Amino acid sequence: MTSVDEKPLFLGIDGGGSKCRALLYSKNDGILGEGLAGPANPVQGLQRAQGAIVASAQQALASAGLSANLLGHLIVGAGLAGINAPRTRGLMEAWAHPFGAFYLTTDLHIACLGAHQGEEGAVIITGTGSSGFAQVGQAQQFLGGHGFPLGDKASGAWLGLAAVQATLLALDGLGPETSLAGAVLAETQCADSTALMDSYSGQASAAFAKLAALVFAQAQAGDRVAERIVEDGAAYLSAMAEQLTRVGSPRLTMIGGLTQLWQPYLAPKVAAKLAPALQTPEMGAVYFAQQVYAGGKAA
Amino acid sequence: MTSVDEKPLFLGIDGGGSKCRALLYSKNDGILGEGLAGPANPVQGLQRAQGAIVASAQQALASAGLSANLLGHLIVGAGLAGINAPRTRGLMEAWAHPFGAFYLTTDLHIACLGAHQGEEGAVIITGTGSSGFAQVGQAQQFLGGHGFPLGDKASGAWLGLAAVQATLLALDGLGPETSLAGAVLAETQCADSTALMDSYSGQASAAFAKLAALVFAQAQAGDRVAERIVEDGAAYLSAMAEQLTRVGSPRLTMIGGLTQLWQPYLAPKVAAKLAPALQTPEMGAVYFAQQVYAGGKAA
Repeated sequence: MTSVDEKPLFLGIDGGGSKCRALLYSKNDGILGEGLAGPANPVQGLQRAQGAIVASAQQALASAGLSANLLGHLIVGAGLAGINAPRTRGLMEAWAHPFGAFYLTTDLHIACLGAHQGEEGAVIITGTGSSGFAQVGQAQQFLGGHGFPLGDKASGAWLGLAAVQATLLALDGLGPETSLAGAVLAETQCADSTALMDSYSGQASAAFAKLAALVFAQAQAGDRVAERIVEDGAAYLSAMAEQLTRVGSPRLTMIGGLTQLWQPYLAPKVAAKLAPALQTPEMGAVYFAQQVYAGGKAA
Repeated sequence: MTSVDEKPLFLGIDGGGSKCRALLYSKNDGILGEGLAGPANPVQGLQRAQGAIVASAQQALASAGLSANLLGHLIVGAGLAGINAPRTRGLMEAWAHPFGAFYLTTDLHIACLGAHQGEEGAVIITGTGSSGFAQVGQAQQFLGGHGFPLGDKASGAWLGLAAVQATLLALDGLGPETSLAGAVLAETQCADSTALMDSYSGQASAAFAKLAALVFAQAQAGDRVAERIVEDGAAYLSAMAEQLTRVGSPRLTMIGGLTQLWQPYLAPKVAAKLAPALQTPEMGAVYFAQQVYAGGKAA
């Protein structure tokens, strides 16, 4: 055990609403192992999230050929969705965790640290939801991420809802004609407005996000309604990029499932600034663990 | 009982998501009694809706000083929310109801019959939700009413969501400045974006609809963002009015809680066409019961 105490083992956790990824890392040997478990958003279930974090950590140790007894030696950095809410953060901080140390931050923070290899920078995330984050010095900036349908403009859910709304208006003859209507009915296998309404009423963001690519396809085919939706979303992302770099971020990265689809529509000076993500969020969580650990030893 | 058989007693039912109204009526004596019970939207609970219909009918008989034994003699016309869905209609039609006759239609149909005193015409309804309906001859036209947030443009919920969205964008510096932001935070007693997001995420349409009057107030005060929201909603209602009268409706009425607020913003030729509601929806349900009963006797 002496070697473990001298050369700490770091574990990075990326915990979201659908899965929890773990990455085991040592400064000398690099990546040692990985783990994957179920949902780890503490807002959607505190004990389930804690269980997923432990399970993914045990998997990471096993995949490295290491004993589960080492759990108590791990220096864990965890970036979790939903941790912005003070109450949720308090509950997670009060957790009697089984690790050597457990440092907590947001999923946005570790995504940013991963994208910029542990350095300062900014990220825009567009997948089912959307949000922006920058860290320069000790200052963190959060933009958007207010959830569907209140915010998350330019997210997959936002695009899908806009497509369903435009379809219903067009079918009633109360909105402009649009090729989105035919495309949405075909994609969803709905015969008419009533069927479309039945299949989408009360649905969560993920169901709407499935229509995101369809909106880009219709915009590319020249449909004016789809073009206007995409232009509106792109203007929002460009404004977000401007604000994130205004605070002095040296590097800006766009991540998430819609990244490739949005890029052609961004303002040219924003598109020119974009740099690729250098590492994953779970590696960002390892950087976070290393930074807090080093700060603690220095103090 | 002979007199009851010769001069039928009609009962009009207006069943919605929050309450069920009953109106007891005879051709000779006019309105005899009234009843009020809980939610009667069968989509939200079939047995609860059926229970509310029976309870309001019993109340109406009691308030008229009549015996509950007369339930089996009543000719009931019921306009129910949610009955457009074929499955729900089928379940309600299969009901072993305790009445002499039970004729089923939509809440929109009885609102229209009430507004035009049993004659042909069209209605636009704007309250928590929004929709349009016209009946000319045997033809019925339904517009909108697809629910929040898919449709229901120009409804209270739509106005409230637009206000919350504009507020979150403005507070992030990612949308135009607007006096809606200060007004929404004050009205909701929220300190910032995070508090606003927490208090509205996952909320149903009724919570958003509480902000509807605030949007009109800010538009009237000259806020450009609020003005644009109201203009967009008014254009939708004007287009709906044009379409409903295009099918030949001799009369057009606007009903629901937002009627007075919308009227100044409608297209002048639409506003000029509007006529007041002559009767309530529950009286419309009585007209409906009389019409079906007379048709049945003639056949």
